[in-house]
Amino acid sequence: METEPRERQAGEHPEEAPRPVVVKPAPYNAETPPEALRAPLTPNASFFVRCNHPVPRLGEHRLTVGGEVEVPLALDMRALEGLPRRTVRATLECAGNGRTGMAPLPPGEPWGQGAVGTAEWTGVPLAEVLGRARPRPEVVEVVAWGAGGEGARRFARALPLRKALDPDTLLALGMNGEPLPVEHGGPVRLLVPGWYGMASVKWVARLEGWTRPFEGYYQRERYVYDAGDGWEEPVTRMRVRARILSPAEGERVAPGRVLVEGVAWSGERRVVRVEVAVDGGDTWEPATLLEEPRESVWVRWAYTWEATEPGRHLLRTRATDEAGEVQPELPEWNRLGYGNNAVRPVRVEVG
Amino acid sequence: METEPRERQAGEHPEEAPRPVVVKPAPYNAETPPEALRAPLTPNASFFVRCNHPVPRLGEHRLTVGGEVEVPLALDMRALEGLPRRTVRATLECAGNGRTGMAPLPPGEPWGQGAVGTAEWTGVPLAEVLGRARPRPEVVEVVAWGAGGEGARRFARALPLRKALDPDTLLALGMNGEPLPVEHGGPVRLLVPGWYGMASVKWVARLEGWTRPFEGYYQRERYVYDAGDGWEEPVTRMRVRARILSPAEGERVAPGRVLVEGVAWSGERRVVRVEVAVDGGDTWEPATLLEEPRESVWVRWAYTWEATEPGRHLLRTRATDEAGEVQPELPEWNRLGYGNNAVRPVRVEVG
Repeated sequence: METEPRERQAGEHPEEAPRPVVVKPAPYNAETPPEALRAPLTPNASFFVRCNHPVPRLGEHRLTVGGEVEVPLALDMRALEGLPRRTVRATLECAGNGRTGMAPLPPGEPWGQGAVGTAEWTGVPLAEVLGRARPRPEVVEVVAWGAGGEGARRFARALPLRKALDPDTLLALGMNGEPLPVEHGGPVRLLVPGWYGMASVKWVARLEGWTRPFEGYYQRERYVYDAGDGWEEPVTRMRVRARILSPAEGERVAPGRVLVEGVAWSGERRVVRVEVAVDGGDTWEPATLLEEPRESVWVRWAYTWEATEPGRHLLRTRATDEAGEVQPELPEWNRLGYGNNAVRPVRVEVG
Repeated sequence: METEPRERQAGEHPEEAPRPVVVKPAPYNAETPPEALRAPLTPNASFFVRCNHPVPRLGEHRLTVGGEVEVPLALDMRALEGLPRRTVRATLECAGNGRTGMAPLPPGEPWGQGAVGTAEWTGVPLAEVLGRARPRPEVVEVVAWGAGGEGARRFARALPLRKALDPDTLLALGMNGEPLPVEHGGPVRLLVPGWYGMASVKWVARLEGWTRPFEGYYQRERYVYDAGDGWEEPVTRMRVRARILSPAEGERVAPGRVLVEGVAWSGERRVVRVEVAVDGGDTWEPATLLEEPRESVWVRWAYTWEATEPGRHLLRTRATDEAGEVQPELPEWNRLGYGNNAVRPVRVEVG
């Protein structure tokens, strides 16, 4: 199967990283393979890729800043790289992750459970650039245009000024200590921790201060929760979610103690509880968090299952975050299939 | 993994039939393997097995008929085999088939999609025996006890007199031209075409005419639709359902024309329409029925898919029966997880 050409970055060593699971070869869309989800950081070469448009062929890249700002800017990559940087660890999840678990099946990329990964992102806080451009007092949103798509379908998303000025919101230039790979938005992308991936605009070319809400295609026609009742709500933060990584779906395990392991995350919040249920019914038992939970970063967890009864079993997990949000059993259906964080059983064979 | 001993019947040639997929080794529960579902008749050795209790060790088996009847009977197997027989083709499906697709996950056997099969059942019409026993005019139900379980949990189910007297309702002694295997209820089981499998009581030992509704455990505590709102409805006929058999879940196919094949059935009714949808959205196209549909027997169908776009796709199918019943997109949840005939997507990789 042909896939779009992907330039390898120096030092990336893709041969050591599990290959992504291709969902569509063109435009290139691929999931993080399950075996790559078990490490705290997802290798760049394994990290899921979501492209609404073909990966652009960029020449000399430049970032301009305009709209309602006092000081319009034009920054080439050297200028951008000269600004103060910081590194932020963040889990990134596609808003369509888990779409195929919704019924009726919505249109859109048929994501399973793998459109998620965690990296350390290095870049210039967006606030550094905005501080130099000086948005006018009436500015309410910062709009970022990427290089993908054309005309009205050119990819663009708005951030409320508060989120744009958050010190963790970056113009990311690096990913896990390497230059940002082109399929992940290199040479520069937004990194908006805690929000679904659509906010982290790739190949950022233009920033603008806006004094009224932006109404572009990817802001109002896509990446909105549309329940079909006339009410549309923009997709923003990642909903709380846990996932079982081991045992894998369909795996056979020996009777006895089985270590169940996984990850859990919630956008802009800490996960405070992960629970596991074995088979049907409503008996949930606490798993152990293996790390200190952090906002917008997955936390690994483990649970010991006494698997005494041979045969097929279903394992479930659900997470709760510090705001009390808990994963639902049923997906919250919406027309475009976003934000499905429903509990998803994993089938295991004992014996 | 240990499974319960299963006596092979002469002439069964299990080595030629795909092995069932064990769900629980004790009591023995197993699904028909997908490759065995493609033939019009499911080999006995591949046919799904549902046991609420261990397979009984039967000595000389005898069937007694009592309760509100004029002529109580005691029939040994030789007497039963001496009565007029007929052969009925019928699809049998467990009421819990598809339970693992329900959310919240109900308790009970974790059936996937394989608790279904079709056989030619040979036996004595129940009406022949009832005609000799002569139920009193006040009789409304015929209760059948099997040999599994003890005391109040001994397996027993009631049939309304009308269904008990249906000429297709059999005391089955044979399955696909062979003596009825013990795991399928041999030497004699009820065969109630069009109803979920719980009605086809295995190892039938006792029949009684009842003048009031039977209230046994498997009649009132199990095999009821309980939506949790205080309303319980007995599980009876098989709901309309189609299943894709090829391509298989996760299968990779070459781009171009792909033949999609499957089966569809509905209890006591004929399937009149099968449709296929490719990917999300609400565009359904008709499949072709490959046989003349019959009540309570699956019909094979086919659909040609022009698979031009490489990558992951989801195929869906839904059937409609002559009463206008169509498969729902969402399972009709009930506390014990019965009758899930919701549309279930199959993931296919093109390229």
